[in-house]
Amino acid sequence: MKVLITGGTGFVGKQLAEHLLRMQTFPFKGEASRRIEKITLFDAFPNDTKWTDPRIELIVGDISNAQAVARVAQDADLVWHLAAVVSGEAEVDFDLGMRVNLQGTWNLLETLRASSTRPRLVNASSFAVFGGDLPPVVTDRTDLTPKSSYGTQKAIGELLVADFTRKGFVDGRSLRLPTITVRPGKPNKAASTFVSSIIREPLSRQPAVCPVRKDSLVYISSPRRTVEAMVRAMFLSGETIGAERTIPLPGLTLSVGEMVAALERIAGPTATSLIRWEPDATIQRLVDSWPGRVEAARAKALGFRADSDFDEIVRAHIEDESVTQWWRN
Amino acid sequence: MKVLITGGTGFVGKQLAEHLLRMQTFPFKGEASRRIEKITLFDAFPNDTKWTDPRIELIVGDISNAQAVARVAQDADLVWHLAAVVSGEAEVDFDLGMRVNLQGTWNLLETLRASSTRPRLVNASSFAVFGGDLPPVVTDRTDLTPKSSYGTQKAIGELLVADFTRKGFVDGRSLRLPTITVRPGKPNKAASTFVSSIIREPLSRQPAVCPVRKDSLVYISSPRRTVEAMVRAMFLSGETIGAERTIPLPGLTLSVGEMVAALERIAGPTATSLIRWEPDATIQRLVDSWPGRVEAARAKALGFRADSDFDEIVRAHIEDESVTQWWRN
Repeated sequence: MKVLITGGTGFVGKQLAEHLLRMQTFPFKGEASRRIEKITLFDAFPNDTKWTDPRIELIVGDISNAQAVARVAQDADLVWHLAAVVSGEAEVDFDLGMRVNLQGTWNLLETLRASSTRPRLVNASSFAVFGGDLPPVVTDRTDLTPKSSYGTQKAIGELLVADFTRKGFVDGRSLRLPTITVRPGKPNKAASTFVSSIIREPLSRQPAVCPVRKDSLVYISSPRRTVEAMVRAMFLSGETIGAERTIPLPGLTLSVGEMVAALERIAGPTATSLIRWEPDATIQRLVDSWPGRVEAARAKALGFRADSDFDEIVRAHIEDESVTQWWRN
Repeated sequence: MKVLITGGTGFVGKQLAEHLLRMQTFPFKGEASRRIEKITLFDAFPNDTKWTDPRIELIVGDISNAQAVARVAQDADLVWHLAAVVSGEAEVDFDLGMRVNLQGTWNLLETLRASSTRPRLVNASSFAVFGGDLPPVVTDRTDLTPKSSYGTQKAIGELLVADFTRKGFVDGRSLRLPTITVRPGKPNKAASTFVSSIIREPLSRQPAVCPVRKDSLVYISSPRRTVEAMVRAMFLSGETIGAERTIPLPGLTLSVGEMVAALERIAGPTATSLIRWEPDATIQRLVDSWPGRVEAARAKALGFRADSDFDEIVRAHIEDESVTQWWRN
């Protein structure tokens, strides 16, 4: 089978590709498992990963260009659509966000429709489809009220994936992802980037800025759990998922203060003293407008699981990213 | 002020234009009322209305063509966006529906954004944004679950109007419209067209087909009330409406049997005997999936009103369309 991962050189795309290569075959229910022939990583940016597996193909291109998308997606059997301009950037550059997040998703759906083989599609959505005046616990039936262009684009993507699926053009499923934490690498232009920075930077003995109060709630998922969820979503049958094709994922709800306390348990007070608390009213308002508590009943019934605790997430980050444990010296 | 009505030669556009011409000036709160310089009716189809008022300009063009939209919309101060491919047609011709209902709305929003004058926009949406498994009463916070391409396109339109408004590009408001009944003229390709046909045709001594059971609930609004709501929506200030820019409108909930009973009270059993009951499972399923009961709390607080009873709607249709009252002979 031919796999396409859009946004494939991003860190989730890379970890997903590694996971798929380890799987060797795909567990389709009721069918023989099928072998992976090719995994195309399509992205606007190359990255420095040295892939040695010959099944990996890296293609740099612009998802807002319909021809470029047609070339990489026309023969795909399984597609993970991760490519996106992140929240902060989509807010600053409205045209770029609409071009990549809306036109790009449209281009992909139209190519998959044209292929006539009804490819499977896992579409990465976000809890940024919510905002403003929210109920204390967001459920699977809470209405879409995005308060950012990114959230608007993600909400539209969910609606398009649902309609292309209902029409039989693709077999799509959208996952509403919690904030992925701890992200490796550098801060990005997402408004939520601090959620990773305040853990990742101190663990590398670097200073970090926390722009929100300690009692601010965040709703998170580790990279490992996120990749697991993306794989699970692909191999559930359409019948199992049912007519509603957007699946809000379970996550861990905790306060920024609880996150920092976990960091201190693991790496000590020298680590947490590297966090400077510099309130930013804009980011505080955004974070307060995001859902803190989420029910995710359907996802749980479909077997998706949240991380069990934040200490585990921090330890997994240390392991996965081979962080030097300077605090042990 | 310059007015643009997309879909302006449709019957709602025509009645809206007539209403605006009668107003002479526009009641902007806190400002002097302003005179109407021009009303552009932009539509894919001409119609046979003979406009005598020199302020009316009729332009035939394709809303999915960005250049055509730019020409008619670039200097508009007030825009009513009514142009759409109806539900049944958007379902049969997916490309046409997406082109007109999605690309067309996008073209309009982009032109209005480029004008930099923050035009006011009333966007016609629909309760077809709902479908499937609905609560007994749909509220202002019921989540979007369209089960048709038309409903998907209308939901996306609401999201785009909200985001363009939040960004300050336009001052938009979307109205979720009940099924407009009694529509004059001929049946169209909307799945709901029978809701008008079963009244309009017998009143003209013509046979009609009713494809659903008598106990099927419909949620309706008369042409008069619909036009009133469109005018009211334009002249409410953005501050009065608030951050949520989609306004589900109040309507009248009644069964098809109650509609037919009203017809019989007004035009007698000879009229109702012209209705043939021919169940159509597809249409029955669609009608059953639409909301029957709607709360519309915000709209009511903003002064929008439903029709008081269906007999009044039928009598208004007879008056507005100069129906010959053959049953009185």
